[in-house]
Amino acid sequence: MAKPKTRDKIINTSLALFNEQGERNVTTNHIASHLGISPGNLYYHFKNKQEIIYQIYLKYENDLQSVLVLPESRSITLTDKQHYLTAVVQCMWCYRFFHQDLEHLLVSDPILHERYKQFSRFCLQSAEAIYNALRTEGYMTASDIQLKALSNHCWITMTSWVSFLRTAVLSDNNRLTKQWIHESIFQIMAIELAFFTKKALYELKTLPELTSPSLLFEAIDAV
Amino acid sequence: MAKPKTRDKIINTSLALFNEQGERNVTTNHIASHLGISPGNLYYHFKNKQEIIYQIYLKYENDLQSVLVLPESRSITLTDKQHYLTAVVQCMWCYRFFHQDLEHLLVSDPILHERYKQFSRFCLQSAEAIYNALRTEGYMTASDIQLKALSNHCWITMTSWVSFLRTAVLSDNNRLTKQWIHESIFQIMAIELAFFTKKALYELKTLPELTSPSLLFEAIDAV
Repeated sequence: MAKPKTRDKIINTSLALFNEQGERNVTTNHIASHLGISPGNLYYHFKNKQEIIYQIYLKYENDLQSVLVLPESRSITLTDKQHYLTAVVQCMWCYRFFHQDLEHLLVSDPILHERYKQFSRFCLQSAEAIYNALRTEGYMTASDIQLKALSNHCWITMTSWVSFLRTAVLSDNNRLTKQWIHESIFQIMAIELAFFTKKALYELKTLPELTSPSLLFEAIDAV
Repeated sequence: MAKPKTRDKIINTSLALFNEQGERNVTTNHIASHLGISPGNLYYHFKNKQEIIYQIYLKYENDLQSVLVLPESRSITLTDKQHYLTAVVQCMWCYRFFHQDLEHLLVSDPILHERYKQFSRFCLQSAEAIYNALRTEGYMTASDIQLKALSNHCWITMTSWVSFLRTAVLSDNNRLTKQWIHESIFQIMAIELAFFTKKALYELKTLPELTSPSLLFEAIDAV
């Protein structure tokens, strides 16, 4: 029983350290020392840091994949749509180190890159299927090409959001918080609304608001 | 006369090598050897690679800044809007190494980071001013918040496009070409169209088409 426990602890601690300090600044020695185990014990469970990253990636992929599913036995609702956005943002927060240094991670591991590429396409097609279902239910007006573009928009915004905040928005006094990540929902919805029908806008008003634009636009205006 | 010439040659050769091989894989020795000059001669002109990158960045900033200007003595037209998109894409192509490894470059140079942050905000506000002018001329229907979100959308799409292509779209057989970068215009326009008025849609039909969706959506569909 001790073996799987240590393995999980290594994964969880690595993820926390990567998120806090950036993957590039965390070595296997840091991880072992943080856990109070010997480097030898860590290497008993993982060949190297790359293998830890790959296992974390599989968890991220699994979490995101389980979110992007259409309801099976009923029609899609706007509550589902809000749930997709908040659940994806939750994933982006939990694994925020990943998109911070993505190209570097993928160049170092061609197998991870190939898997990530397949997964991106799966996510793009899932988003498109969700938008398509919303259109079928009369919530959206958009051409097929616009639905594809909206799916790209969601994927690019979500996966680039942390980098956008860090490079262009946040000042040294503003730490990256979950609230900042949450504002990506606002960005996506402000665009989506242009494709929503009156029926959708009417129903949306009855749902709880997901976010406020304050942080983001105030920061951008403060040049 | 010899001094500024060598300086310009160093900048141009560095930019070409960074774009082709990635900034991280190019040393000052590579640059000097490519130019057939001694490392000492290169160091006579630039203290280190960081200084070369900073000078290239200033050119990028200057190029982009000169594009994002509203017409002075007349109203904005849809031809202007198309010109903004093609000119920005041209910049993104010319300096494509920059956004490939942006966080790494900015972490290495806090002065560059601060300057880039100010510049991003300038670009976001310029984009917003352009959309605002288009709305004033009756080409767009959008709230102030949507215009801000559209500006973010343009900036995030343009600056993340190369990374999106490399990590999620391009296969090993597809090299990054100017045509691929050009498809970002299609992505942006497919979203923008939802905010355009009938007057704009009618006028757009008389303008030459800027891009076709073939490459991008075919690649994404080929899972």
